[in-house]
Amino acid sequence: MAKQRVLTGITTTGTPHLGNYVGAIRPSIAASQDSTLDSFFFLADYHALIKGQGPELVRQSTKEIAATWLALGLDTDHALFYRQSDIPEIPELTWVLNCNAAKGLMNRAHAYKAAVQANEDAGEDPDFAITMGLFSYPVLMAADILMFNANSIPVGRDQIQHVEMARDIAGRFNHNFAEVFTLPVAAVDDNVAVLQGLDGRKMSKSYNNTIPLFLPEKKLRKHINKIKTNLLEPGEPKDPDDSTVFQVWAAFADAAETARMRKAFEEGIAWGEAKKQLFELIDAELAPARVRYDELMEDPGHIESELLKGAERAREHSSVLMAKVRDAVGISRIR
Amino acid sequence: MAKQRVLTGITTTGTPHLGNYVGAIRPSIAASQDSTLDSFFFLADYHALIKGQGPELVRQSTKEIAATWLALGLDTDHALFYRQSDIPEIPELTWVLNCNAAKGLMNRAHAYKAAVQANEDAGEDPDFAITMGLFSYPVLMAADILMFNANSIPVGRDQIQHVEMARDIAGRFNHNFAEVFTLPVAAVDDNVAVLQGLDGRKMSKSYNNTIPLFLPEKKLRKHINKIKTNLLEPGEPKDPDDSTVFQVWAAFADAAETARMRKAFEEGIAWGEAKKQLFELIDAELAPARVRYDELMEDPGHIESELLKGAERAREHSSVLMAKVRDAVGISRIR
Repeated sequence: MAKQRVLTGITTTGTPHLGNYVGAIRPSIAASQDSTLDSFFFLADYHALIKGQGPELVRQSTKEIAATWLALGLDTDHALFYRQSDIPEIPELTWVLNCNAAKGLMNRAHAYKAAVQANEDAGEDPDFAITMGLFSYPVLMAADILMFNANSIPVGRDQIQHVEMARDIAGRFNHNFAEVFTLPVAAVDDNVAVLQGLDGRKMSKSYNNTIPLFLPEKKLRKHINKIKTNLLEPGEPKDPDDSTVFQVWAAFADAAETARMRKAFEEGIAWGEAKKQLFELIDAELAPARVRYDELMEDPGHIESELLKGAERAREHSSVLMAKVRDAVGISRIR
Repeated sequence: MAKQRVLTGITTTGTPHLGNYVGAIRPSIAASQDSTLDSFFFLADYHALIKGQGPELVRQSTKEIAATWLALGLDTDHALFYRQSDIPEIPELTWVLNCNAAKGLMNRAHAYKAAVQANEDAGEDPDFAITMGLFSYPVLMAADILMFNANSIPVGRDQIQHVEMARDIAGRFNHNFAEVFTLPVAAVDDNVAVLQGLDGRKMSKSYNNTIPLFLPEKKLRKHINKIKTNLLEPGEPKDPDDSTVFQVWAAFADAAETARMRKAFEEGIAWGEAKKQLFELIDAELAPARVRYDELMEDPGHIESELLKGAERAREHSSVLMAKVRDAVGISRIR
């Protein structure tokens, strides 16, 4: 039986933070070591362009995300790790899929509808400031997925629609031309770990409450000290289930250590002491990778060569698939 | 001063006919010999996919159009002659431009609006059967044009909007990122020769009234004999200005020959005789090229090698431009 092929894109906007690490990066790298799976990870830099944050942020984010995954031990001989913009077949397939994607499908895309709603609420023209990038990116996502015949796409609930759109477009193409594409299935994981940020809300770049993953030791300590707590004094019992410090602790500690800290909370551990232990716990997990990360950030040539190696391996797939697509639609060599 | 750079796309749907020859191909090949111009001609096979006519028609049309232009003496060492789908930078640039193109701009595209109108007239959903290919092809056209810094785009009045959209998108990109693109200008020629078809209407594939360009001699004669005339007998004066036979004659004859035929009409030339002379005139112009065309159609490898030569030359431009674009938006190599 063919291996399950799992594909995950990482949009290159922003600096990886502890929330990304706990919710996505750590489990993904663990999954990539599962020999029953074929894992594809890609830096979605074409998608990053939609956000319009400017070239320096896209470039820096690409570098930081690549260095992060490599530093954390992603095995790039096993998993495929590549940058979307190194695969010229992806935009080409996007165009071919455009010709097989109903515009009406895009009209119903959540992100587009939300942008229209926001415009209407603001009394603007429905399509005010909406680019063709935002409107048509579900087709690009379909190309990302269909290019590699991925059959399992790990997504949150809000992303199921994208996988369904890719299925729809693939089915239409297979029907109209030839059975070229595998129909992908969304693998929804409702148990994705969600880390709380400094203010107790979900850790997210958009809330500006993150703790970047590879801060230097001193800064990491400083950030952890900024986690919001209450005014309870040392010795007063504290509710672990109402504490961001405890919630982050549990994301890094094993069961025994989690139980120990729960007890310490109930016994009135001082916030300063709890944060000190939290810093030590996180630092112990991240310190070795941080050394590698710092080295990688000083050695962009190495990051680049890893990505190019991934691109070469990815193109062994994409060039074959695209040749089939071209032949099926009639843009292959003259004969 | 830099040469004027003229770019023309030919959608690979259908077989070239006399109307294409007189209105587009013959003047384009003549213009390509103008040493003050840089001429770019491309087979727009990505655009052909929008029509959904199926792979065999796209393939056959690509072959016939390429063979036609080559048979008619296009100098492929001087003019650039390439197939759109051989230039991977084109779909890539299309994506980047998507992120700089307002959706509202596409909402106003003539072809899209006409399709919506037809749907509404038929009581259908406005976007019924409209693909993302149809909706977004002005962005692909912008990429076709902007990729080569073309500054002069010969178009009919109905196509001016496409050039204006390309200007708009280019201007937005130049403003947001870097001055990468030349702003193209539509070169509207109101004197494009329009040939009448068998039924007297404009010769057009959609009217099914065409005379294919490189019919075998016998079939060409047969087609010409099918041109609609009136019931006037030999000897009765005929109105040249109300005759498709005369109109086609004038498109192939020089001034003296045109004057002679006008006189013959007034003197009552028989329809059969007029058509016989018309056949001889057209055949004399086309026969040498027809021999080459037939040879080329038997030698697809040669057509292919001409197109690949053109692609190689085109990519000398497109790879340089795309590198600038990638750098400007932040998807270039990590550094």
